[in-house]
This record gives sequence, structure tokens and C-alpha cells, in this order.
Amino acid sequence: MPLKPDIKAPEAQRERVGFALVGIGKLTAEELIPAACTSKHAYVAALVSGEADKAQGFARALGLTEQDAYTYEEFDELAGRDDVQAVYIVTPNSLHREYATRAARLGKHVLCEKPLGVNAEDAQAIVDACKEAGVLLMTAYRCQYTPEHWAARAAVQGGTLGEVRLLHSIHAQVEDDPEAWRLKRELAGGGPLPDVGIYSLNTLRFITGQEPEWVFATQHQPDGNPRFREVEASMSALLGFPGGVSATLQTSYAAFKTTSLRAMGEKGSLNMEPAFPYDGLKVQVSSEGGTHEPTFPEYDQFTLEFDHFAQCIRSGDTPWTPGEEGVQDHVIMDALYESARTGQVVRLPTQTSADAFRGTKPQLPQK
Amino acid sequence: MPLKPDIKAPEAQRERVGFALVGIGKLTAEELIPAACTSKHAYVAALVSGEADKAQGFARALGLTEQDAYTYEEFDELAGRDDVQAVYIVTPNSLHREYATRAARLGKHVLCEKPLGVNAEDAQAIVDACKEAGVLLMTAYRCQYTPEHWAARAAVQGGTLGEVRLLHSIHAQVEDDPEAWRLKRELAGGGPLPDVGIYSLNTLRFITGQEPEWVFATQHQPDGNPRFREVEASMSALLGFPGGVSATLQTSYAAFKTTSLRAMGEKGSLNMEPAFPYDGLKVQVSSEGGTHEPTFPEYDQFTLEFDHFAQCIRSGDTPWTPGEEGVQDHVIMDALYESARTGQVVRLPTQTSADAFRGTKPQLPQK
Amino acid sequence: MPLKPDIKAPEAQRERVGFALVGIGKLTAEELIPAACTSKHAYVAALVSGEADKAQGFARALGLTEQDAYTYEEFDELAGRDDVQAVYIVTPNSLHREYATRAARLGKHVLCEKPLGVNAEDAQAIVDACKEAGVLLMTAYRCQYTPEHWAARAAVQGGTLGEVRLLHSIHAQVEDDPEAWRLKRELAGGGPLPDVGIYSLNTLRFITGQEPEWVFATQHQPDGNPRFREVEASMSALLGFPGGVSATLQTSYAAFKTTSLRAMGEKGSLNMEPAFPYDGLKVQVSSEGGTHEPTFPEYDQFTLEFDHFAQCIRSGDTPWTPGEEGVQDHVIMDALYESARTGQVVRLPTQTSADAFRGTKPQLPQK
Amino acid sequence: MPLKPDIKAPEAQRERVGFALVGIGKLTAEELIPAACTSKHAYVAALVSGEADKAQGFARALGLTEQDAYTYEEFDELAGRDDVQAVYIVTPNSLHREYATRAARLGKHVLCEKPLGVNAEDAQAIVDACKEAGVLLMTAYRCQYTPEHWAARAAVQGGTLGEVRLLHSIHAQVEDDPEAWRLKRELAGGGPLPDVGIYSLNTLRFITGQEPEWVFATQHQPDGNPRFREVEASMSALLGFPGGVSATLQTSYAAFKTTSLRAMGEKGSLNMEPAFPYDGLKVQVSSEGGTHEPTFPEYDQFTLEFDHFAQCIRSGDTPWTPGEEGVQDHVIMDALYESARTGQVVRLPTQTSADAFRGTKPQLPQK
Repeated sequence: MPLKPDIKAPEAQRERVGFALVGIGKLTAEELIPAACTSKHAYVAALVSGEADKAQGFARALGLTEQDAYTYEEFDELAGRDDVQAVYIVTPNSLHREYATRAARLGKHVLCEKPLGVNAEDAQAIVDACKEAGVLLMTAYRCQYTPEHWAARAAVQGGTLGEVRLLHSIHAQVEDDPEAWRLKRELAGGGPLPDVGIYSLNTLRFITGQEPEWVFATQHQPDGNPRFREVEASMSALLGFPGGVSATLQTSYAAFKTTSLRAMGEKGSLNMEPAFPYDGLKVQVSSEGGTHEPTFPEYDQFTLEFDHFAQCIRSGDTPWTPGEEGVQDHVIMDALYESARTGQVVRLPTQTSADAFRGTKPQLPQK
Repeated sequence: MPLKPDIKAPEAQRERVGFALVGIGKLTAEELIPAACTSKHAYVAALVSGEADKAQGFARALGLTEQDAYTYEEFDELAGRDDVQAVYIVTPNSLHREYATRAARLGKHVLCEKPLGVNAEDAQAIVDACKEAGVLLMTAYRCQYTPEHWAARAAVQGGTLGEVRLLHSIHAQVEDDPEAWRLKRELAGGGPLPDVGIYSLNTLRFITGQEPEWVFATQHQPDGNPRFREVEASMSALLGFPGGVSATLQTSYAAFKTTSLRAMGEKGSLNMEPAFPYDGLKVQVSSEGGTHEPTFPEYDQFTLEFDHFAQCIRSGDTPWTPGEEGVQDHVIMDALYESARTGQVVRLPTQTSADAFRGTKPQLPQK
Repeated sequence: MPLKPDIKAPEAQRERVGFALVGIGKLTAEELIPAACTSKHAYVAALVSGEADKAQGFARALGLTEQDAYTYEEFDELAGRDDVQAVYIVTPNSLHREYATRAARLGKHVLCEKPLGVNAEDAQAIVDACKEAGVLLMTAYRCQYTPEHWAARAAVQGGTLGEVRLLHSIHAQVEDDPEAWRLKRELAGGGPLPDVGIYSLNTLRFITGQEPEWVFATQHQPDGNPRFREVEASMSALLGFPGGVSATLQTSYAAFKTTSLRAMGEKGSLNMEPAFPYDGLKVQVSSEGGTHEPTFPEYDQFTLEFDHFAQCIRSGDTPWTPGEEGVQDHVIMDALYESARTGQVVRLPTQTSADAFRGTKPQLPQK
Repeated sequence: MPLKPDIKAPEAQRERVGFALVGIGKLTAEELIPAACTSKHAYVAALVSGEADKAQGFARALGLTEQDAYTYEEFDELAGRDDVQAVYIVTPNSLHREYATRAARLGKHVLCEKPLGVNAEDAQAIVDACKEAGVLLMTAYRCQYTPEHWAARAAVQGGTLGEVRLLHSIHAQVEDDPEAWRLKRELAGGGPLPDVGIYSLNTLRFITGQEPEWVFATQHQPDGNPRFREVEASMSALLGFPGGVSATLQTSYAAFKTTSLRAMGEKGSLNMEPAFPYDGLKVQVSSEGGTHEPTFPEYDQFTLEFDHFAQCIRSGDTPWTPGEEGVQDHVIMDALYESARTGQVVRLPTQTSADAFRGTKPQLPQK
């Protein structure tokens, strides 16, 4: 008599796609390592950090050996690690290009944190390097892999809302450490826009499948505030999408944590709030009859990313959010900064197809 | 033994300030007449409508006589009605000026629906006429009289949120009758902006006590849609407030009913949603410790307006939202339309004092 | 060109059914009088109060004359008032019987506040008196007239939830005036149970259409608390409904304002919270796919009651909540008190038909 | 220049307390194994399952060897595993006693899933066996380790709510597999009560720190339903706590997923909904001024349990929820079943001290 439901073990750890995590900060320690533990198709095979002690400490904590811990200087030794098929780059933004390029040359596939680079040119160089080396490149846009954001996209594109007229998104939080690398232009490439505002931008593009045709932005960089010597504190922007659809977008490092996403059509409205945290996402679709808040299966966003990229590595498919998707956000962010600087509207290249920069659709988690 | 709490009767009906309601549409029938029933200081003494039957029908429904019902042609006969001290003008926007001016000449105080006119010049003429006649003029901005909006203002100005950096508001709804006067430029002065977007604009100004220094806007008027032959369907805008504070504002007649108001500061955020309905307003203030949703006493927004204006009439005080407050919204809306037309930022006159266009603070309802 | 939607005036005041309001407390002053103002079919024609000044004050406030104000001693003079077709009895509970009976003898129809009496016998006497006099009797159960509670009933009875297994309701609030008549057993007939707990009881019966077969209850009457010398402070109870469905019910005069109603079935659950206030009712229906919160038209609960009873008076139909409905709640409350006293289950008479004590369905407000 | 915040690696895996997981079902696979991955003080050193393949599969998935996988027959071989200091028993309830006793005899500390046994006598035998063997025993009541439930307890005991008068909790869900061991009396010891209702019971005891003095219950076991041949489908109960405080409790295997917890006092009310899931817990405290919803740090409930027990093993402290805590719930559940069977109130032994069955307070997660 089977007393338990049929529980199957996941793939054996060593049969999964082995990743080297490059850069050990809060995200790696608190999200990526736990996520890899519950991944079906990926596992952490090696760790790379500027501090040898830290890499070794996390290796031990993972049950790995000291041989699995590398310094940045030893990065190229990953070449000899056949069990490391991919790297996940989690360094400060300005170092993405170097380590992505080096990894590509070693024949390792590259999963790179957002933003892909520090500007469109920098990001394009990463795309080019991976293409030349024949390795896959994925930009780690976790909000394009959740069932909640796919439900939002379905509401927008599936007619539930009628023709969508207005879009809006906010992603703001407080960055209060004046020494944080995120506040150094050279390392980060900008302020809140490429760090958190990018979620608003990227997700508006994702749910509509469309690309903005023009942007207008204003930014604020308060005098005398040591945190904002190099980068903007806040930005508010308008984006013109095809067909007269307009979006407002707000981002800040000097405003209380807020993440919101809206799409309003003639027949209904979509409201996600919170829109971008690691869990607890909420989707509400309102129409004449009332408000519907769907339920979703449990999952881990980073596990979904690991698994999608691991499956692409096995199948050879282009990831849903390849490098090109990351470049496009930089093109738009470059335009937003230009507009904020000049006080003028900045126009962008027209795209004729939907999802112009995306690859193979990911699997969504099932209940 | 007193078995009941001490319940006091309100003022006798005939001792309250008598109003003539000018224009009988949905707002008058469903909101103003019931509100006057529960007012402490005001009552409906007369009705004016383009249709004699309608005015007489409502007079009978109110327990008034046929002598209390007037057509527009008979408007000046109100001169002889000493019991009518004030008029409440609820006509299409383009007629506000005519009836406000005629009422002022009859020595009647004027409570005028928003928007005050069809543009800044038109609205200013109303202010001038009332000043010349020595009567009081109040713009009926109901959202400057509720305890919820005053709590929002207190959160923004009282330090709870820290320094406020970003503001945002949406007021959208569907106007689906192509014949509605609200869709005729000559009658309405514009589309959703002066009708519903004005709440977003006016309330952002109210909660900050500040005036925008510049605006940028984009609007959409879809080709071939019979509803939007004369006016915009949607508008998205940026407003620059003093000190680098930026606001986004969205309004539409082609988007599902949405009313939202936000202010984000370094220590907390204010979120009102719904922000502008007649009842059911919700205020949430979030900060490090969590989210607080205060409770408020029950009241009727239109009763509060009637009572505030009636008390001003008795005391001679300037209303909290006098004509000047209504003119200022027109100045900004004129700039928004200019920006949408030219694609350029439009600058506005600088104001040096807070609440630059407001009068005597209203009493808030008590629990 | 018709610029306005077609707005029709309600019936002329004097063509509606005239009511005498008997008893002027908070409910009469703050709810019933405003509600009558917006009623389509009813109006206040006379007022009766123990204090002549108060009755006259409210008469003046309503635009009535001093002849429309009566003391209790003058109650029988209503006989001569052909324009008073009905009375609405809003006195302390123990006086319902006297004034209902006197009104019936005068040929006036009777709308009586809940609870109908002070116990089942007392309430039955009211039913008998009205029957003998040939006048209609309605128990003022406002929560059987709202679209929200009818939606709750539809969810329970219409299969949305699957077979319903568990029911639950709370209605608690603080009564902090030791002198309140509601705390005197002789006047009120009990404590929180007949005042607020009755909403939980009555609405559970309404949404299921079923009657409990047995009850078990525990009550608390704290020693030495001057407020609870005569009546219970709190009660918790179990009610057994047909088919093994069980309900828990909690009520208190010593607990923070809480109103909640739930029904749980195999396929979904219904949650109303708040469940019983005058406005702001919220209905949520959760099932596998998520949670749906329907929207409802605006209305006034007391206006709906006035209008239903006025229509019954015109048509001769039995009201949806006649006297029998009020008696049945007393039968159950008597059993609850008996159980609390004896510590034993108390059984109730079996009912074989659904809605065993109800009359003609009311019209629900339309959007 | 340190570009990253100071991120420290957790303890090396092999320095943590090693656990053998005994029983591999959904909970083990989806919650316990991932939780152990992120534990600071515990790790999975061995796995025990009735199916050798399954144990070996999970061992491989965890990066362990085949030597770390055991069948139940091989259980006593854990004796030789010095790296296994504790077992976590996750078998069907009726097997808790056997494996807890055997583990205790091997000198292994015992963390046992709730309910501790199948009735009070069975559970007491586990307590006795662990005491005799000198090993620690903890009942895995995850809801006594979260910051949300501790905040609820603080609201109840700290005066925020005033004197608490009424308590209420629901824990219901659908169990739709007629073959599930949870529906076999011999294996489970009961139906929904010991599986999910126990959370309501245990958490009401936890937040008050008090023990019920009497209970009354009714249960439903529908005829002819193959799922409910052996155990109840639903139960509703009243519990009498000291000082006249009364609680209602509802549980079901035939009602849509609902988890709710309330405490109502004179000054405020506590509402947790959802009250018992693995994440997404929500705490709302309402009082005169409004509703406050506090925010909490992120954590994993099972990690907190692993870490608390691992720390107790190192320090020798009695766990916060020792075996005695588990026995007490069985004492009460036995009484609830007796009441449901007899239709009579069942009295329970009086406890004179608060938290009568609890040990050393756990550390709460920090932001």
C-alpha cells in the first residue's frame, strides 16, 4: 500500500548543468545559492570571488571542496573544469563585460545579471563576444520568468483589458550607503535607473511585447548629498509606445520601497503591487464585474532562471531573454539619460515585430 | 431616565443658507440633492433647469412648490428670492461663466463645479465678476474637504514620509457616449483632463501645498473614433515641482475606472486608492515598521462643501478653494495642452508661498 | 441637443408612502431621516418622540410643521393622519410590542427595528396583533436587502462553493456606556446577542435559506463590571444546520468592532468582511483559480428597506422579512441563552422548506 | 575598496548538526530538504525511506552518497553514524512512536512532525522514551517560530488589544485522495483535526500562553463518502479559556483552503489571514486609530525549526516546543473527540502557569 504520494527525486546533483557563480554579494549568498539547491537542472559547481576566504567559506558551506573556490585572478582556470558548463556573473555592472567575455572565450555559457552592461555599447560588446565564441548568453531578467508576470502579459495581450491605453510603473527604494558601488557611475553605469528602474522598463516592454518609440525624462541629483554625487537620486519619465499608448515610469534611490505596475484598457485594468520582489507578487485584474486576483503555484524566481538557462544549454535554444534583450534596455536607458540632460524628447528606432529581442519561451511552474 | 444618547436636531431647514441648484444632471440628482438633505447649514431652496418639467419634478420630490422651479430664461427672477443666498452651478463647463456672472450680479454667492471654466482666461473672468459684485466664489473641489485627503496632506507635509521625492496620480474612466457634452470641446473645454484628470492635478497641488514649475505632456486622440473627434482620449504628463520633486499624471476617457494618488519619500510612502470617489476612500501610509491604514469618520463630500461655503457666507471668510484655486488649475491645464501640442516643456510662473491660492481652512468631520 | 443624460425626478414627496418615525435616537437621526430623503417610494410624514422638543426640532429640520411632531402620549392621534400609512418603530426593544400593537390597531402598517421583541413570546404577540388588525409587518433586517448579501447567498446556494460544510460569523463591538438602555435586560431583552449578534444569526440563516436544528452556547458576564450587571458581555456559540453543516457564531459588547461572515465549501469559500456595516461591505469568493471581489451599485440600506416596505404596502405582498422572520431569530436566541445557562445542547423545531419564514423577494438596486 | 557589503559564509556544512530525515514525502522533498540547504546550524547527513530507490535518489540529488541512504529496516545502522546527531521524523503519525523510540535508544535527538502521536497516551510514550534515553525531543510546531506569530502573541499579551475576550481560528483544506494515509484512522489518529486543525488549536494556545479549561465539539462524517469512512470530514468546536475567554475553532478536509486566526479585545483586534501557510503570513492589528500591518524579515519556517533544535542540541536547552507541548494538544484533541461523540462538555486539567508546556525561547529572524 503506497501511503505517500509519488515523490520523485530530482536529477542527481552531478548530472545537472554545473555553474560557476562569479561574485559573492548579498544576491549570491541569499538568493542564488539557495535557488541552485532547489533547481532541477542546475547546481553550483564552483565559486569565484575577489576574496579567497569568502569563496572558500561558501564552498565549504555548500559541501564543495577548496578546489572549487577561485579568485578573480584564477578565473581562467575554469577552463579545465568540464563540470562547469556555465557562469553566472553577479559582479558590479562595469565588470560584466570583462568576465562575460573571458567566460565566453573559455567556452562557458553566460548568464549575466541585469543590467547587461553600463550602456548600450558596452552591452553590445558582450553580445558580440558570446556570439563569436558560440556560447549562449542570457540576461537575468527574473521578472520575465514568473507565472505572475506572464499572467499580466496575458491580460494585456489577450483582450481582457480591451485596447490598452495607459501604462505605469514605479520601482523605487532607498540606497543609503554612500560607499555602495551602485552609487559610483563608473562601476554601475548610472543610479537607480539601471538597477531598479530597469525592472519597470523591462517589464512594461515584456507585458506589451512592444518597444517605445520615444522617451522624455527628468532626473534629480540633489546638491550636496554625498550619496548622489555621481548618479541621479530619482527619475520620472514618459515613454511613447506604438499606437499612442503612453507610459509613465518612476524610479529612485531616495524613496521608500515601492514596486508597482499597471496597464489600463477600455475594458479593464491590470494592477501588480508589489510588482517586482522575489516573492509575494500580487496580480489584480479589474473589470466591470469586479476584481479578480488569481492564485499561482509556488516557485523560486532564481531557480526558474537557472532551469531555463540550463535547458537552453542542453537544447541549444536561444534563451527567452538573450543578450539582445539586455542591449535594448540599455538603448532606451541611454535615451532616457539623454532626454534628462537635454530636456528634449529622444526618439528610438522603430521595431516592426512583437517581442523583437526575445527567444524561446520558458516553461512556467505548474501547481 | 434618559434612554437614548443626547440627539440634537439640526438647524431648522429655513434657517440654513438657501441654495439654488443650477443645472439638473446626474450629479445634482444623485449627489447634491441628497447631500443638501443632510447638510447642517444649507438647503435647496430653488432649482434651475433648461427643462421646466424636470425642475418642477425635482421641486415636488423635494417637497418644494412649483414656484421654486425656474428655467434658465427665468434665472434672473432669483433676484427676488431673499431665501436664495447662493447658487451652485452644475451646468456644462462652458456655461459656468454666464451663470456665475449673472448670479454675482444678482448678489448671489457662487459655488461652481470644477473645472471653473473652459480655460484660464474664462475662469479668471468669473473671479473678476464675483470680486466686482462683492460675492463669494468657491470652486467645488470636494477632494480638498475630506479627512482622508487632509490625512494624506499631513503625511506629506508633516514629515512622516521624510522628504518627498516622487508623486504620481491617475484618474481615468470610460466615457462611452459619443453624444456626451463632455466630449464637445466648445462645451467642456477639453477632454478627460479638465473633467477627471483635474482631480489628480488639484490633489497633488493640495497635498504638497506647492505649485508645478514646468510641465511636459503627451496626449492621444485616436483617428476615426467618433468619441474623440474633438478632445483627447488620454494624456500622460510630467510635472516639475520645486526642489526637484517630479510628478507623473495620467488621465483618460478610454481606460477602466482608476483613481490613484501616491507620494514617496525617503522614510515612507503614501498611497490612496481609490483616491477620488465619492466614498470608500482608502489611505495607506507605509514605512519601515509596516503599513498603517487609518480610519475616518463617516461624512458626505458634498455636504461638507455645502457646509463650508454656507459657513463662509455667514462669516464672510474666503473659502478654502476660492475662484483663484480654480484659475490656477486652468493655467496648468493650458500649459499641459500647449506641451502636448508642441512636444516641448512649458514653464509656469513661480509661487513663493505655500497654498498660494487657498483661503480659510475648512472644518473636518469628527468621529 | 440634449446635453445631459435623461435624469428623471423621483415621485413627488406627497405621493410616496408616508411614514411616522417612532423614536428619535442616533439611528433615526443619522440614518433613517437621510434615507427617507432619497427614497423613491417613502417619505417622513410625522415624528414621534418622548421629548416634544426633539420631535419638533427634527420636524423643522425636515421642513415639516409642528403639527407633524407627536409625543408618545399623542401617539394615537396618528389615527387621524391619512397621510401616515406606516410607522417605523425605533424605540428600545421592550417598547416594540406596545407601539407595534397600538399602530396596528390604528390601521397603520408596521416596520419594526430588529430584534422584533425581547423574546419569542413577545415577538409573536406583535405578529398576532398585526395579523388581527390586517396590517403588514416587516422586521427591519437591512442585511437581507443589499446586493452584497444577495451575492453571498447566491455563492452559497448557487453551487459556486460546492457543498457548504462550515459557516462562521462574528459581530462584536464595544458598548462602553454603563447607562445605555442596551445594557438593561428589561429594556433590551439581552446583551450583544439580540443587538449585534442577531446580524450574524440572521444572515447565516439568510445566505443558507436553512434553519439551525440545535445550538450550544457559552456566555461571559464578568463579575464587578458595571456594564455587564444585567446582560452578557460576550457569547460564543455552535449551531447545527441540516446535513451536518456547522456554524460558529461570536458576539460581544466588549470586543473591538468586528463584522465577519464566512461560508466554506469543497470548491470555494465566501468571505464578507466587513459583513454588516451600513456601507463599505466587501464580498470575496475564493476558489481554485483565485479570488473574485465583485463590484456593486451604490445604494442606501435604509432606503432599500423603506422602498421594499412601501412597495409591499401598495401591492399587498408579504415583505421578504415579515414578523415571522423576526420571531424565528428570537426562538433561536432563546435557545442560545438556555444552552448558555444549562451547559447543554438545545434542540430546535425542524423546518422542511427553504426560506421557511420569508415573503416576497425584494428588488435589488441596479447599477 | 570594499565594493560589496560584508557577506559572511555560513558554517561549513560538515560543522553543522547532521540530521537524518526519516520519511520522504512531499513535505520532506519540497520543504525540509530545501530548508536544510539554507540552515545555519543543520544539514541533511542521511535519509531514511521505505523505498530504497527514493532514498538513494534524494541522496544523489543532495550530493550525498549511496551510503547515506537507508531503508526503515536499516534504521538502526544510524547508530554508527556519529555525524548524525538528530533525526527528523516525517512518517505517518502512527509510526512516530516507533521511530522516535528507536532513535532515542540510538542516542539521537528527535525532532518529530506534528501531531506528536495518534493520541495523548501514544504521544506521552514518546516523551517518556526520549527522557529515559536522555535525548532532546522537539515537536515541529513551525508556527511557534515565526516573527509573525510572535507579533500576534505580543499583540495579545502586550496590552495592544486590551483584555482579550474572544478567539477564533479556522484551518480547513480539501483532502481529495480517498487512499491518502491521512484518511486512515489507524495511521493518522484522526482526520483534519490532528493534521490541520491542530495549527488552530496550538496557535491559540501559543498566542494566549493559556490552556483551555473545557471543550465542546461537533463533527461531521458524511455517510457514503469513501474519503470519510474512518475519520471526520469537519469539526466545529468551542473552547473555554481561563477568565471567561471563549474560542471557536473550525477544521475540515472538505472545505476550501482557509487559514485564519483572530483575537478580539476591548481596545483592538488581531487578524492573521492567511494564518498558517509556509510563507505569505499576514498580521493586521486594528484599533481606534486604524489598521496596522507590520512588515517582517524574510525567513524559511523549516530553517528556523532546524536551527532552533540544532542550537538546543549544542546548548542542552529544552526546545520551545518540547514533547510535552505535543502531548498537551493530544490531551485537548482527545477531549474534542470525546465531546463530539457524547454531545457533552468535556473538562480539562487546570494549568496555573503561562506557557505551561514550553521551554527555551527561540531566536527570531532579524531584518
